[in-house]
Amino acid sequence: MKQSKILIPTKKEAPADAEALSHKMMVRAGYIYQVSAGVWAYLPMAYRVIRKVENIIREEMDKAGAVEMMLPALLPADLWKKSGRYESYGDNLFKLKDRRDREFILGPTHEETITSILRDSVQSYKKLPLVVYQLQDKFRDEDRPRYGILRGKEFEMLDGYSFSADQAGLDEAYNLQAKAYRNIFDKIGLDYKVILADSGTMGGKNSQEFSAPAEVGEDTIAYTDGTYAANLEKATSKFVGVQQTADPAELQKQATPGAHSVDEAAESLGLESSQIIKSMLYMAKMDEEETVPVLVLMRGNDEVNETKVENALDCEELSLATEEDAEKYLGAHPGSLGPVGVGEEVKILADNYVKVLVNMACGANEDGFHYVNANLDRDFRVDEFGDFRNVQEGEIAPDGQPIKFTRGIELGHIFKLGTHYSKILGAQVLDQNGRQTDMVMGCYGIGVSRLLSAVAEQTADEHGLAWPDSIAPFDVHVIPVNAKNEEQMQMAESITKTLEAAGYEVLLDDRKERAGVKFADADLIGLPLRVTVGKKASEGIVEVKIRKTGETIEIKQEEIENTVGILLKQLTPATETAAD
Amino acid sequence: MKQSKILIPTKKEAPADAEALSHKMMVRAGYIYQVSAGVWAYLPMAYRVIRKVENIIREEMDKAGAVEMMLPALLPADLWKKSGRYESYGDNLFKLKDRRDREFILGPTHEETITSILRDSVQSYKKLPLVVYQLQDKFRDEDRPRYGILRGKEFEMLDGYSFSADQAGLDEAYNLQAKAYRNIFDKIGLDYKVILADSGTMGGKNSQEFSAPAEVGEDTIAYTDGTYAANLEKATSKFVGVQQTADPAELQKQATPGAHSVDEAAESLGLESSQIIKSMLYMAKMDEEETVPVLVLMRGNDEVNETKVENALDCEELSLATEEDAEKYLGAHPGSLGPVGVGEEVKILADNYVKVLVNMACGANEDGFHYVNANLDRDFRVDEFGDFRNVQEGEIAPDGQPIKFTRGIELGHIFKLGTHYSKILGAQVLDQNGRQTDMVMGCYGIGVSRLLSAVAEQTADEHGLAWPDSIAPFDVHVIPVNAKNEEQMQMAESITKTLEAAGYEVLLDDRKERAGVKFADADLIGLPLRVTVGKKASEGIVEVKIRKTGETIEIKQEEIENTVGILLKQLTPATETAAD
Repeated sequence: MKQSKILIPTKKEAPADAEALSHKMMVRAGYIYQVSAGVWAYLPMAYRVIRKVENIIREEMDKAGAVEMMLPALLPADLWKKSGRYESYGDNLFKLKDRRDREFILGPTHEETITSILRDSVQSYKKLPLVVYQLQDKFRDEDRPRYGILRGKEFEMLDGYSFSADQAGLDEAYNLQAKAYRNIFDKIGLDYKVILADSGTMGGKNSQEFSAPAEVGEDTIAYTDGTYAANLEKATSKFVGVQQTADPAELQKQATPGAHSVDEAAESLGLESSQIIKSMLYMAKMDEEETVPVLVLMRGNDEVNETKVENALDCEELSLATEEDAEKYLGAHPGSLGPVGVGEEVKILADNYVKVLVNMACGANEDGFHYVNANLDRDFRVDEFGDFRNVQEGEIAPDGQPIKFTRGIELGHIFKLGTHYSKILGAQVLDQNGRQTDMVMGCYGIGVSRLLSAVAEQTADEHGLAWPDSIAPFDVHVIPVNAKNEEQMQMAESITKTLEAAGYEVLLDDRKERAGVKFADADLIGLPLRVTVGKKASEGIVEVKIRKTGETIEIKQEEIENTVGILLKQLTPATETAAD
Repeated sequence: MKQSKILIPTKKEAPADAEALSHKMMVRAGYIYQVSAGVWAYLPMAYRVIRKVENIIREEMDKAGAVEMMLPALLPADLWKKSGRYESYGDNLFKLKDRRDREFILGPTHEETITSILRDSVQSYKKLPLVVYQLQDKFRDEDRPRYGILRGKEFEMLDGYSFSADQAGLDEAYNLQAKAYRNIFDKIGLDYKVILADSGTMGGKNSQEFSAPAEVGEDTIAYTDGTYAANLEKATSKFVGVQQTADPAELQKQATPGAHSVDEAAESLGLESSQIIKSMLYMAKMDEEETVPVLVLMRGNDEVNETKVENALDCEELSLATEEDAEKYLGAHPGSLGPVGVGEEVKILADNYVKVLVNMACGANEDGFHYVNANLDRDFRVDEFGDFRNVQEGEIAPDGQPIKFTRGIELGHIFKLGTHYSKILGAQVLDQNGRQTDMVMGCYGIGVSRLLSAVAEQTADEHGLAWPDSIAPFDVHVIPVNAKNEEQMQMAESITKTLEAAGYEVLLDDRKERAGVKFADADLIGLPLRVTVGKKASEGIVEVKIRKTGETIEIKQEEIENTVGILLKQLTPATETAAD
């Protein structure tokens, strides 16, 4: 392919608002163009990468027995109202009306649609299991779209759905998908972790997340050098609390003027923050009718893990109480709250580490005052103990190894949905005994467009992008140094033909630009190999440069096919063949 | 592929509202599923057809030097306001707002978006020409979605755009696209016509339409056995009017009580309808400020072609006058209108055939009265003569051959857009002389999903679909008659393996269904060849059935690969190789 025929608008400067390296470089390299905040055009080079990722996905979905189809993006709102997600998705859902005022949404995911199709199409367990998937643009009205195509309002997803007659069928489909996902990421050559994750609004209980370590990742991943990896929301560590043995002292109220944070209170009281009880008041929406105040207690040096609290309460929504609510239920403002004297109308949860403390300090529910020497049972009650804190680096994970933190980009997520949607939407089949039974569902997703960002985050450098060969838009960039030199141009074209005949994809820089411009563009564009045809063309010698390492070698023209073959093979992730 | 693994929900009954054969059969064969009126899911079989069409398109686009990319569906409204199409698209445009109340539309086409990208990306004529395309779901809030996926609210399109530095560049790109389009339709094996078409709201002057003759088509096509084909809106015929020679008689007003139509007036007056002037009052919106009344005259036996009138007036919108407007400008109701005594504030257009008439009858602008013996110039004026009528079957086309009519489905449309959008959106490049010049654009489109309907309309029969091999979801359907018979199942599997190894795509009906069900489903699904493994399996004999003709032959198992090869080759359109 001649570079003059393809739209690659490289730029010297990154957009002013670009923070992430992948964002900067994909714009500068002429891969993507911002049409509106969070809405991007995939220019030809980015789209070639997308297509390569799609092909890898299709291969692995085929192997896993999944069949491709295509659902519409425009979805009638009624199904989403039925499932409850019309409400629970909130502002993230794009809503619109047609000319007859019928309500629609733009699909951010398709559980409702595919379940209703299966409900209408399959009546017997004999027709199951079925696994379907699609590669489709999804829509999500992100509050803060950012990092280029990493978090956009319109983005491409692989979404797959499995329908089985029983749990065993779901387990099998889920395991096949899990394997397919690993194969996909392995083939692409991504650095990724398979982590335990919270299922969020998907309604499922069992899930795995595939996450790519990267600084700009939205999640904190707690992992070990062993087998453990989990999202911070889900991560647990070994409980190592030791019962304190001091004698309970007398409860005393002390003035702590101006002390609003745990650290200020510790300073004011002359105590370690670990001896102070952090008391956070939340409002937990249990259902449409009931919202209850919940006081969460933990050591001052710990952080509340709201996901764990939410899961323990099994509530629909958990939000920090407003100042007004704090005053209403506890009579003080946040910063001076505590469990002493709290009535039954407020539920009290406490982290396990609170149980072993003696003579704790805590807010006195009176602005500017704390209690010291507060003791469990004697001075305050706890309705439920549990693990409600974020783990910290260095703690021991369930696999016995110390926990490390990294930021991660969520690439994929697989869920055992169970019968949540089948029940709501009436998707039943007759089982072997002729009885109606809910179809058992799994759902599976990969963010295709954000995967490009993840790869770019992991591979780009200060000169530009550096694609792994698995998904590079072309394998080789051929650059004649001087476009006016006929010998160089002819040799570049001849090399291009040779390599294309051998099955490689080649981008030939036929532009009449200065060598410096072409080299800088080549580094930005980031194809795995660059073949430079320069002054030594007259001796039949060209230079091959490996983008990733910067290494160069000079070879004779006739060695080009062989050399390219060997180098690309070296650059291919070893896991690609091992995975299958 | 085993049929049990793929979702093909065949049905005995078509949907009650289905009129078109393609709609009925694609639903009955389990290809498509209606999610909402005009919004469809492509089940796995339909999606396989889509993918085959896409691949043919990609091949031909590559050959034509066009490069694939992907624009978003979610488009900011401001660009569309700038181009004027936010208004002119009217209710067909899906409009929505994001959470910050910013206005968006769902793209029905992408001229504005791609032009603004090129404006920001290309500054010199040296970077042109560039031709880009995408295969994407478009959105259009159809007033009357119908005929299944033939006219939907969400549909897949190929849309391509060429940018050149001058008209010659556009001509070249346009011709390459025209050839690519013919190749695409030839390869698919469609019966189609390349016709002259009106450019509608695209703003272009030069265009060709590709239309598939089919009863349910939305357009009337006037064509000849020679080279001529045009949409009825655009079609012209040889003018064969002969000047009438009677002496002008005296203008007389006659009562024609109850005569509202031309036929009633002819009856009442005792005249041929061709001697009566049909007078139609229109309101022509010239721009935001000016709307003028226009009276269009033609022979009573002719029909007004509003597109021709619109083009002659070069107006933004043309609509039939209301009763109120007729009364206001002409003092009578439609049915009694005429040109006699009409003031200058009403523009009068007349079809060329009016010019040769003498002693015409026409409405008297007084309800219940007509004039007879009206004569041009003496009794009424005409501001402009022209071809303002629909051609009729049997008239002589510009190629000298008699015109025939057929209904047609619009498959594709290519336009020489020129500089319309470049001017509006400021997309200029520096030309060879260093001067700013507008980029010259072409735009090109194929309705991918509606193409499936067109093929189905042309090929389906009362038993079901009958795909040409070029885009069939599989090449061969292998059916063991008795799934419980191990010998039959083994032979069917062995044949499947043989054919798959030879590169054919095979659907193996491994379901435990009665033979009658499997045969009926196979006819519905419509793969080109069916291989039936029945009682003669024990003799090593199978039956091959050609879906299109119903012909069957018995062959030995070892002849299967050879036979399938020969039969599929026969079924491949001869044009496929001739076109390239």
